[in-house]
Amino acid sequence: MDYPSKVLAKAVDEISGLPGIGRKTALRLALHLLKQPPSRATSLGNSLINLVNEIKYCKDCHNFSDFEICEICSNDKRNDETICIVEDVRDVIAIENTGKYTGKYLILGGKISPMEGVGPHQLNIPSIERKLNEGTVKELIFALSATMEGDTTAYYIYKKFKSFKVNFSSIARGISVGDELEYADEISLGRSIMNRLPYNDGNV
Amino acid sequence: MDYPSKVLAKAVDEISGLPGIGRKTALRLALHLLKQPPSRATSLGNSLINLVNEIKYCKDCHNFSDFEICEICSNDKRNDETICIVEDVRDVIAIENTGKYTGKYLILGGKISPMEGVGPHQLNIPSIERKLNEGTVKELIFALSATMEGDTTAYYIYKKFKSFKVNFSSIARGISVGDELEYADEISLGRSIMNRLPYNDGNV
Repeated sequence: MDYPSKVLAKAVDEISGLPGIGRKTALRLALHLLKQPPSRATSLGNSLINLVNEIKYCKDCHNFSDFEICEICSNDKRNDETICIVEDVRDVIAIENTGKYTGKYLILGGKISPMEGVGPHQLNIPSIERKLNEGTVKELIFALSATMEGDTTAYYIYKKFKSFKVNFSSIARGISVGDELEYADEISLGRSIMNRLPYNDGNV
Repeated sequence: MDYPSKVLAKAVDEISGLPGIGRKTALRLALHLLKQPPSRATSLGNSLINLVNEIKYCKDCHNFSDFEICEICSNDKRNDETICIVEDVRDVIAIENTGKYTGKYLILGGKISPMEGVGPHQLNIPSIERKLNEGTVKELIFALSATMEGDTTAYYIYKKFKSFKVNFSSIARGISVGDELEYADEISLGRSIMNRLPYNDGNV
């Protein structure tokens, strides 16, 4: 495709390098920015540059942060005894949005996936060992994808650290709130029967 | 939604201000940039800033350009006698990609649309008058959307300039190449019957 201007062509090239954005969408976005006041694109451009140059990784849990230690790890009110192991920062945001978890996190940075060439050595597994060696942790919660890769990762970590005196748990899998049984897949339904809970006021 | 870092939150805010991009997609794009080398985001950010600061509008046809006069208008090999009137730069790119048009363009910058509050005074209609006054133009081709707004815009321009001794034409509307008749809408099919062409080797 031939663009009438080199700066436009360059912007379309750069935008269409983002995942899920093709050249037509990239052109639409570039033309949208050209219709806005120039401060809009300048502000977007600078925010992207600042993002990669100013962001830090929490030394404790590997979450993104503006400081050396993130706000969750440095919060005294949060429970040091449970560590929730997640794949990436989106999972932390999702769990924080539930408001149901008051412990800390550890972000693996992915999951073991031979298909994508990700082995245990690329993940932040040594940080789990460091935390366990500190001696305050009593429970490790696996909050990983319900996929083969997620299960493999949990099993690898469990095997590696089962000699430590901590409890291992995994987030419950079952029927989502609002699901109709007839449309649930059989594996989820099977697990939710096996992992049935005593029925009382607290569980409803 | 609570983000672990202010620079991340700012980037997500900015990205999700683009049309068709929600906060979840914006977060996914920001995390993608954080996984790439920092030069990737810097280059994207700078290309957006350069886009709005360096782009020029061709004084002749209102196309985007790197110069005062765009490459199409300044190209001596292109025919000065036909002017193709289009809504925006995407239409120029689409027509240029066909390789079938060797004349020049005039970009209106939109179409008359009372619903969106766009009247003739917001469009580059005075530039058509300027071009017609120069006296070289022999044909004005309307290449506007096949919608009520597109038709209204063409009719407005036709009425305004019909006293000039030029031919007015409109791009053909009919059945697209590859269309099956039974699925074509009746207005397109009706027009394609009314505007039928003599059948010979040249037209197939």
